[in-house]
Amino acid sequence: MIAEVISVGTELLLGQTIDTDAAAVAQALSRQGISIYHRSTVGDNEDRLAADLRQALERADIVITIGGLGPTMDDLTKETLARVLDIPLVTDPAHVERLTEMGKRRGWDKFPEHFMKQADVPASGRGIPNNNGTALGAIFEKGGKYGVCLPGPPNELIPMLEETVEPFFAEKTSGEKAVIKSLVLRIIGMGESTVEERVKDLMADSNPTVAPYAKTGEVHLRVTARAATDEDAMALIAPREAAIRERLGDVVYGIDSETLEFAVVSLLQQASRTVACAESCSGGLISKRITDIPDSSRVFGLGIVSYSNESKEKFLSVDSRLLAEHGAVSHEVARAMAEGVRAAAGSDIGVSVTGIAGPGGGSEKKPVGTVYLGLAWDGGVISQHHQFLGRRQDVSQRAAQAALALVRRFLIAPDEPTFRQSP
Amino acid sequence: MIAEVISVGTELLLGQTIDTDAAAVAQALSRQGISIYHRSTVGDNEDRLAADLRQALERADIVITIGGLGPTMDDLTKETLARVLDIPLVTDPAHVERLTEMGKRRGWDKFPEHFMKQADVPASGRGIPNNNGTALGAIFEKGGKYGVCLPGPPNELIPMLEETVEPFFAEKTSGEKAVIKSLVLRIIGMGESTVEERVKDLMADSNPTVAPYAKTGEVHLRVTARAATDEDAMALIAPREAAIRERLGDVVYGIDSETLEFAVVSLLQQASRTVACAESCSGGLISKRITDIPDSSRVFGLGIVSYSNESKEKFLSVDSRLLAEHGAVSHEVARAMAEGVRAAAGSDIGVSVTGIAGPGGGSEKKPVGTVYLGLAWDGGVISQHHQFLGRRQDVSQRAAQAALALVRRFLIAPDEPTFRQSP
Repeated sequence: MIAEVISVGTELLLGQTIDTDAAAVAQALSRQGISIYHRSTVGDNEDRLAADLRQALERADIVITIGGLGPTMDDLTKETLARVLDIPLVTDPAHVERLTEMGKRRGWDKFPEHFMKQADVPASGRGIPNNNGTALGAIFEKGGKYGVCLPGPPNELIPMLEETVEPFFAEKTSGEKAVIKSLVLRIIGMGESTVEERVKDLMADSNPTVAPYAKTGEVHLRVTARAATDEDAMALIAPREAAIRERLGDVVYGIDSETLEFAVVSLLQQASRTVACAESCSGGLISKRITDIPDSSRVFGLGIVSYSNESKEKFLSVDSRLLAEHGAVSHEVARAMAEGVRAAAGSDIGVSVTGIAGPGGGSEKKPVGTVYLGLAWDGGVISQHHQFLGRRQDVSQRAAQAALALVRRFLIAPDEPTFRQSP
Repeated sequence: MIAEVISVGTELLLGQTIDTDAAAVAQALSRQGISIYHRSTVGDNEDRLAADLRQALERADIVITIGGLGPTMDDLTKETLARVLDIPLVTDPAHVERLTEMGKRRGWDKFPEHFMKQADVPASGRGIPNNNGTALGAIFEKGGKYGVCLPGPPNELIPMLEETVEPFFAEKTSGEKAVIKSLVLRIIGMGESTVEERVKDLMADSNPTVAPYAKTGEVHLRVTARAATDEDAMALIAPREAAIRERLGDVVYGIDSETLEFAVVSLLQQASRTVACAESCSGGLISKRITDIPDSSRVFGLGIVSYSNESKEKFLSVDSRLLAEHGAVSHEVARAMAEGVRAAAGSDIGVSVTGIAGPGGGSEKKPVGTVYLGLAWDGGVISQHHQFLGRRQDVSQRAAQAALALVRRFLIAPDEPTFRQSP
């Protein structure tokens, strides 16, 4: 089966909103072995949307729209798809009741105009329950073609995709033969060119394919196989994965959606060790990334965002003379921050970041992008200097990424020269 | 002039990478009054890319490609566009020299294969300097059509867009008449339906248009005007902005790309007040958002991510009896955290978040999504209960958003009933 994805919204077309939904939908389709050749974006314009829907329904078996299901006048997607497919909309009484209850709880004495159109479903097809918002989704069915409407807010779309849309198409495609499976190997500490040089013979094959992608502070290698069944596809991928791992070694830190913070939290849990963070120019991002992982509270109890000299002294016990002598952005202060947060938290490991994220604050000797990382443990403390390119948020992100990479390295290879105590 | 944007990369098509670049490019084109009717995504497939380029070059004056400029075998965009336009590529000797220098600094004894193709530029057209990466961009010119190649990494693409591509097209379009200008009004504390009810007569107009968009925890109203000049467009927008502000009042917190954290930092700076944060389920996100704003160090010196009862007691002076009696997720602990971080930091305001982000940890009485916020100042302390829907990261984001909204509300309307001391 072939699908097209159409994102609807002038704010998307003009770039005022980032489209994360289309990626989530594409991933879900891929998981079900459904091919995608076109993805597109169209504004809140009824005629253009109708034209794009007609074209997509000619080219593909499934057309998934994203956005335009809300209660306002320019939410037009469901109505337009109904018109293009010539399938009437009917009201789902259970959802009307749900919306009415919600209005009561909010103390509304009347509903905004058009509000109840959110309960419309296709006469031929079905509604898609939405537990996190007010608009029902819809699956239209006509002559072997499927039109699927999903709402724009990601916290509504993603559960609807996983709970209703994926199972629906898994059932529809189960009679079909081609399945596409991908495995992403996530790599930190080796550049894209080097990665490619080591695996370039594998990149010449067509099944499975191997392709590198440069990410912020890391590289991904995607291995994709096509076969009759999931098992056959995985059987093509497995030896390729093994070969890549053998060539690249322990720079491979995870697979698929396993983030670097997931790898770090997992390693800490396996080793029954804890970490605490002292952050200056990363502003809380290391703590945020660690606490994004469920159950991270087992390995993480304290992060300190010390954005002033005073807070570095008071909460991290950084000596004021160090600050005066070397400046807050220095090897010495990075080490003192790491030791300080480790002692304050009573954790096994302390990690710190201090740097100049910009746009101001840079100097000839310490330009914007200058970052020092510190790592303290029971056997010592080290610091590292980095010079990152980019803007304020890039520097902050690269600093957090490098700090997490440093913690990971320490957990898997504590005997490396990196972790010999700094002089 | 009309432009199309084509994002290139199988990882984009299959949703393994979120396309933030296409939005940045679309914004830049809009700023120059260039219309966009199509945006699309294609995989790393030479034939399909060539076909899409040909179609786009028929429909539009400008085709901007994103991605596929790197040093690897499946980076094909520049070569393919050169072939489609029948414009040869030539080597930029200055860039070859720059890459050679870079290799020396990195201690490379030889370059990876294909590395130097990153220095290729069109024989008819020009290269686009890239200060943050190794691949030059390119502007191809042929018979009034322009093909622009930009690299995928956002920290490379965005400066190239602003420094070279925008000025180039500003010059090309300066002879033309139609300019599109947009203004986004950012709203917090009023739902999309209510916003629309208040402005729906304005939404019926076609120039300027007014359209609402629901965002995570806020609503945006976009006002878009088309006119002969920037000044004429702004003259259409200004009275519409004034009318909306009058109808909505102080729920409008900012315009365009001014985030809620920008509004909070600005208000703090204007009032010469400081804030400190104590975060549990938001994991550092409030601190991160505040410190994303340049010069926020003037109003923010300390954030504490207290992810354990011990750290709440030790760093925020939360009484262990409160934790035992009410639990860490409670009105009482939220207030104690806000007071504690205010005292610890010596700041004017303390704000706190404690909640259950999930997926585990929920109970009948306090389900996942239960969040308490605290706010402490010299005149008192209050707390708020929220029940958010969604997953772990949604809860964390909504909690941070609500906390920033609470600080803003306090700064603009401290006499509201919300800020009467909790019993």
